[in-house]
Amino acid sequence: MAGEIRFTRYGRHETPIGYAEVTIHKICVQAKQAASTLALLDSRVKVRLLLKMARALERDWRAIRRSNEKDLRKAGRFGLTAAMKDRLYLDHGRIEEMAEAVRTVAHLKDPVGRVLKRWRRPSGLWIEKVSVPLGVILIIYESRPNVTADCASLCLKSGNAVILRGGREAVETNRAIVDALRKPLASFNLPPASIGFVKTRAYSAVNLLLKETENVSLVIPRGGEALIRKIAALSRIPVIKHYRGNCHVYIDRDADIGKAVAIAYNAKVQRPGVCNAMETLLVHRRIAPVVLPRLGKLFLEAGVELRGCPVTRRILPGIKEAREQDWYEEYLDLILAVRVVPSLDEAVRHITRYGSQHSDAIVTRNKRAAELFVHAVDSASVFVNASTRLADGGVYGFGAEVGISTDKFHARGPMGIEDLTSYKYVVRGTGQIRE
Amino acid sequence: MAGEIRFTRYGRHETPIGYAEVTIHKICVQAKQAASTLALLDSRVKVRLLLKMARALERDWRAIRRSNEKDLRKAGRFGLTAAMKDRLYLDHGRIEEMAEAVRTVAHLKDPVGRVLKRWRRPSGLWIEKVSVPLGVILIIYESRPNVTADCASLCLKSGNAVILRGGREAVETNRAIVDALRKPLASFNLPPASIGFVKTRAYSAVNLLLKETENVSLVIPRGGEALIRKIAALSRIPVIKHYRGNCHVYIDRDADIGKAVAIAYNAKVQRPGVCNAMETLLVHRRIAPVVLPRLGKLFLEAGVELRGCPVTRRILPGIKEAREQDWYEEYLDLILAVRVVPSLDEAVRHITRYGSQHSDAIVTRNKRAAELFVHAVDSASVFVNASTRLADGGVYGFGAEVGISTDKFHARGPMGIEDLTSYKYVVRGTGQIRE
Repeated sequence: MAGEIRFTRYGRHETPIGYAEVTIHKICVQAKQAASTLALLDSRVKVRLLLKMARALERDWRAIRRSNEKDLRKAGRFGLTAAMKDRLYLDHGRIEEMAEAVRTVAHLKDPVGRVLKRWRRPSGLWIEKVSVPLGVILIIYESRPNVTADCASLCLKSGNAVILRGGREAVETNRAIVDALRKPLASFNLPPASIGFVKTRAYSAVNLLLKETENVSLVIPRGGEALIRKIAALSRIPVIKHYRGNCHVYIDRDADIGKAVAIAYNAKVQRPGVCNAMETLLVHRRIAPVVLPRLGKLFLEAGVELRGCPVTRRILPGIKEAREQDWYEEYLDLILAVRVVPSLDEAVRHITRYGSQHSDAIVTRNKRAAELFVHAVDSASVFVNASTRLADGGVYGFGAEVGISTDKFHARGPMGIEDLTSYKYVVRGTGQIRE
Repeated sequence: MAGEIRFTRYGRHETPIGYAEVTIHKICVQAKQAASTLALLDSRVKVRLLLKMARALERDWRAIRRSNEKDLRKAGRFGLTAAMKDRLYLDHGRIEEMAEAVRTVAHLKDPVGRVLKRWRRPSGLWIEKVSVPLGVILIIYESRPNVTADCASLCLKSGNAVILRGGREAVETNRAIVDALRKPLASFNLPPASIGFVKTRAYSAVNLLLKETENVSLVIPRGGEALIRKIAALSRIPVIKHYRGNCHVYIDRDADIGKAVAIAYNAKVQRPGVCNAMETLLVHRRIAPVVLPRLGKLFLEAGVELRGCPVTRRILPGIKEAREQDWYEEYLDLILAVRVVPSLDEAVRHITRYGSQHSDAIVTRNKRAAELFVHAVDSASVFVNASTRLADGGVYGFGAEVGISTDKFHARGPMGIEDLTSYKYVVRGTGQIRE
């Protein structure tokens, strides 16, 4: 079966089968074949493989650098901003960091073969739920070339094959990184297709990939909301994603004021451009006259633009008015919507109505209030007396983060490599049959 | 927001918004609203609610019976066979069984609010992974009306709202069952939309339902392969499914012959029409001359048609020849393909190539052979010295089975109510921020 290509027609209208279709389908079929070998790899073999991949990146740094220069020369053609160019740029130091990240993944605990549960039935059957890899994981991403090495190592560590589809603007860099990562595969009898790479620049490649339901198990898009929405709308393969993070901090009437100020400030200012930064601050009306002036001063000094409800604007005169749209907004910037609420219940209602179920926090010394909030707020991460900025695979101790999900299906919140596995039931008996 | 209907256009081409679209969309929006209430229900309240639902079924048995008669009178119009009519038919006894099944679900352990994991980070953060409901679950099913009560109780027990879309041939019966089940909702302040029911007979209703990505979390189709394939092809919402069960029993050279014969016979004959019945028997060549004559005689007596490979036909002269297509077949009937293999490896290769990753078994006294098989066979359930017919939520101790999945995403194998949940991370701190 190896290398066999099935000629398939896609979609409702029969289209002539072109070069891209044959190539994409072949990549997916071969990745599936590779996956069945990768699934059975011994843990120690995976560690050695990943360490060799890290070394290969370091050894090939000049070739990667040269390819990166090619991409950078074309950056103007794709309209890349200075910030985007900086994210694309690689030097020896950044390539070493990339290799170091692969080494970290190499030393994570093997997520495959864990006995998740084990129990005995009255019939004498022993049932085990044992973790297994998902199969083939397709990553569609933009810009930053370190995603290439990160995702390849995370997928291989979890016994999965990977198919990488990076942005057009980084195609030469990504290809050079994949070339390096593939070098150690042969010495472990693994096919190059273990790390699939889609190099065609045709946009239609993505459409073709998303129809490979028989070969690809999971799609993880990494990029802006527009990219993710497009993929979710096109895909017939399960997609793990988060569109946006409209995160809230609610300062309860029983909050410790020092902690409330520190947490709210951190959640907005420490890194405003990321999905777990706070976008709306909710304050109980009893504590608002004390806490808002202190926070207002700090936010002003940090250059944060505040947009408040009428009560907030009475306490902090001169700030802008918040409109209905502001409660929905993910600013990803030094802008903050502020609302004074009459109760914990109203804070929960606000979060339920406007939130994105990403990460939300309560600051309180009242245990009952904390438990009510934790129970009622249906977000992937719910914090008590801690900053929403802590919603992160590294902070949670996952070692490496595959992505963040605001879906409820399969995986939710920060995803570690354990979330790249499924399971099987192993049932051991002594001749049991169905009566 | 309650009862609000958003008028949405579906698909790429703008279509006029008709009655079905408005109705279907309304059902989905209201189910989502109901889900947020159901998610927060106390465990004891759910027990009382389900027990009342069971009583309501018993009390309304005459109305259900009358509706069932209406469906049965129209059975000819839908071309129902005698077997299908029997599956549709309800009498007092069957309605009592239905109520009893709801009571069983009522007393299952609450799958919501379980602490799946709990750990402390060096920063002092306590992280808990806590189970939560999925949201709205859409069940699309055929014929058997007990699915209506089963699925409604399973979804409500797990804090989810349900939308039921049964077959056209059972619409009156299902409506009467739903009417009864809904009666106790009001006394718990729960909306009727907690149990959504799509009564329009228009096929387009399914297409419309499958586009409700914002409101419906999960689709579970229950029915034949054609129905399931159609839904999987149409849906933009995650679908949990199994297409087919091409299950294998492999009798190893070191098998206990008595157990091998009992298991193989049970796996084929006890109930051949279900997905976990054996379709292909693999026998190691060393043991084939001993075990096949004994099994051949038993199968002959049970009326099983055997189709064998050349080696099998030398041992059992007179049986039919197995063709390549037979190894792929899910007969769901008293037909069995038989192949003699030279090794355990070849048995695994056969299962990998032709199997459906549903349920496969090895019979052996050799521990090493058992572990090799368990490791290498990538099926949802893998058995050692037990019949494939035991792949079942009841046998595994789940109390009730929601379905069986041969997917790897979210849930795999027999699904209990725990598989109708997701989780959230609850993070408790003492003022921790991101440095």
